[in-house]
Amino acid sequence: MLLLIPGPVTTRPEVRAAAGVDLAPWDFDFRDLYAGVRDRLLRLAGGAPETHAALPLPGCGHFINEAALRTFLPPGGRILVPGTGGYAERMVRLAREAGRDPVLLEIDRDRPIDPAAVAAALAADPTITHAGIVYSETATGLVADIDAIGAVVRAQGRRMLVDAVSAFGALPVDVAAHPEIDAVVFTANKCLEGLPGLAYAIARIDRLEASVGQAGSWSFDLADIYHQVVTRGDGRPRFTPPAQIINALNTALDFLEEEGGPENRLARYQANMGTLYDGLIRIGLRLYVARAWQGPIIVNVHAPADPQWNLQGFVDALKRRGYLISNFHNTPTPGFRVGCIGAITPYDMDGAVAAMDRALVDIGVHNRGEKSA
Amino acid sequence: MLLLIPGPVTTRPEVRAAAGVDLAPWDFDFRDLYAGVRDRLLRLAGGAPETHAALPLPGCGHFINEAALRTFLPPGGRILVPGTGGYAERMVRLAREAGRDPVLLEIDRDRPIDPAAVAAALAADPTITHAGIVYSETATGLVADIDAIGAVVRAQGRRMLVDAVSAFGALPVDVAAHPEIDAVVFTANKCLEGLPGLAYAIARIDRLEASVGQAGSWSFDLADIYHQVVTRGDGRPRFTPPAQIINALNTALDFLEEEGGPENRLARYQANMGTLYDGLIRIGLRLYVARAWQGPIIVNVHAPADPQWNLQGFVDALKRRGYLISNFHNTPTPGFRVGCIGAITPYDMDGAVAAMDRALVDIGVHNRGEKSA
Repeated sequence: MLLLIPGPVTTRPEVRAAAGVDLAPWDFDFRDLYAGVRDRLLRLAGGAPETHAALPLPGCGHFINEAALRTFLPPGGRILVPGTGGYAERMVRLAREAGRDPVLLEIDRDRPIDPAAVAAALAADPTITHAGIVYSETATGLVADIDAIGAVVRAQGRRMLVDAVSAFGALPVDVAAHPEIDAVVFTANKCLEGLPGLAYAIARIDRLEASVGQAGSWSFDLADIYHQVVTRGDGRPRFTPPAQIINALNTALDFLEEEGGPENRLARYQANMGTLYDGLIRIGLRLYVARAWQGPIIVNVHAPADPQWNLQGFVDALKRRGYLISNFHNTPTPGFRVGCIGAITPYDMDGAVAAMDRALVDIGVHNRGEKSA
Repeated sequence: MLLLIPGPVTTRPEVRAAAGVDLAPWDFDFRDLYAGVRDRLLRLAGGAPETHAALPLPGCGHFINEAALRTFLPPGGRILVPGTGGYAERMVRLAREAGRDPVLLEIDRDRPIDPAAVAAALAADPTITHAGIVYSETATGLVADIDAIGAVVRAQGRRMLVDAVSAFGALPVDVAAHPEIDAVVFTANKCLEGLPGLAYAIARIDRLEASVGQAGSWSFDLADIYHQVVTRGDGRPRFTPPAQIINALNTALDFLEEEGGPENRLARYQANMGTLYDGLIRIGLRLYVARAWQGPIIVNVHAPADPQWNLQGFVDALKRRGYLISNFHNTPTPGFRVGCIGAITPYDMDGAVAAMDRALVDIGVHNRGEKSA
């Protein structure tokens, strides 16, 4: 069974095997591994140990986003979030429930964020200190131009949090070139091709030091993690870490290195996406995002207009043919989503397109166009 | 290598193998597993689905304790925490940083909590709504009598949170007999003999419903988890769960069942502890907790008075002999800690005692008595 959900992804057998061992997280042997993974992630993000730190947190993307929001925004602090889709809404809700004051910037969801719109919104409200950007919006498949957005945020003297959960490991991140970025956050189980249960923030040390005591949560205080894990210097984890998942990530990072780093991984994902995108058009389906704007992580497909269309029925038919896709959509209009990430190749995507073609027949869908078409 | 740390514990190979598979957490197949584990945990806690719910949270013991404190105490809410040791202090700090008002009850750390002291402290301060009890204090090895403490909390019309991280799966829990308990919280990687990265709360449904909107954190809102995972009824996880760790826990629960449940597991741990305790006395070491009060989870040993004593040196020597113990202590006086839990038997403990005997010789310790002796 090939996972073509937007994460957790299909992993290599060696990565999974690395999760199947007993580990003692406070032992010295583990500390080397624990620090080694942090160092590798910091380098991948373009960070130097003098200016940035890689901070581990058990859990999922929600947790590391909440940790960044709590750590870098004071209670009542204001953050502008361009409304790219479900994951921007997630950031808004996390901020609001944590007692921060998020400002949702309404934008068209079928095209990339316009940096000028961000600049205008920031210029109009000097009480907004931060912009919160979803790098790859899983709900739609669109990718944000964080260089261009970062430039306008910087020009306005504001700061930025980047939700790179569905991006890090493939899409470029260079924190050294982005002094406006307080933190880039991500998990192990997307483009890094590890397993779920583990998140990281790459954060600016000076901003961490200025944020001590602000989080209102010991668990989610990145400044405390920095103190415990990095500056204390003994290398001990702060709380019990998901040791097996860290070990699996370490193996996954070996494969990222072997592949030639994020640039080559991105090229593979783009090839996956291209094969999928073109193949889906070839079999008569209509895509949500225009080809020029389609990101390499996930492809959204409009639901066929046929009355026989049924998402779960399609997912089940496809599963019988060996491919697992997401069984819910986050777009305003109905459709389905196919992930292009994980330990998969264009060859796999060719097979997936052929299976989708047959699965539509299996469930009796004849009209593959859009309702509105 | 046998892990004799107080958790993560030595697991069975089948449990570890269950972590080495790709899983799609939103797929229907996974939902059955996800719900099945919750049902099994609820039954283990003596809860009925009409009155209680088992609520999963990615992460560690800190996270699930913070979630319970945030969910059941309003901002500024007051909780009495008997100061059993490091894990009581953890609850106090988690509550304080979350904007709750913890009250530490100072007690002797080398004997169990006196229920009368809890009763007196509650009677003296009617603004305290909750007691927070660490069931098995890993810092010392003492176990709390939650039946007796629960009775006084109930008699005073207060409520209780139980940190059962180092207890659940072995020490008895019966939430039906304890209407005062809002939640019992625990992780997968201690007496349940699963892997780290996953926590649960067994919580009263009526109290969850009365706590909506109180947590001040979307991530840590048990009322929201209850709504998303249980009442919505489609069985989908709330956020990306650590699917492999859940799968491993499911296998670990098979073994708990095969062993005959928590009662038999407790008997095995007690036998482990007895073999260890008596063996350590036999080789001339002095124990922190009196035999009558020694809990079955972890044994604390006083540091030998010999000037050659060095905790890390001892840990390293023991590791060379195949046994891994904790390399830090949480007691006011120096010492070392040996876990009695995990997929281990009294036979293993005999071997551990013999290895400790030799490891002390390895590092040149001759005087094994206490400094104060």
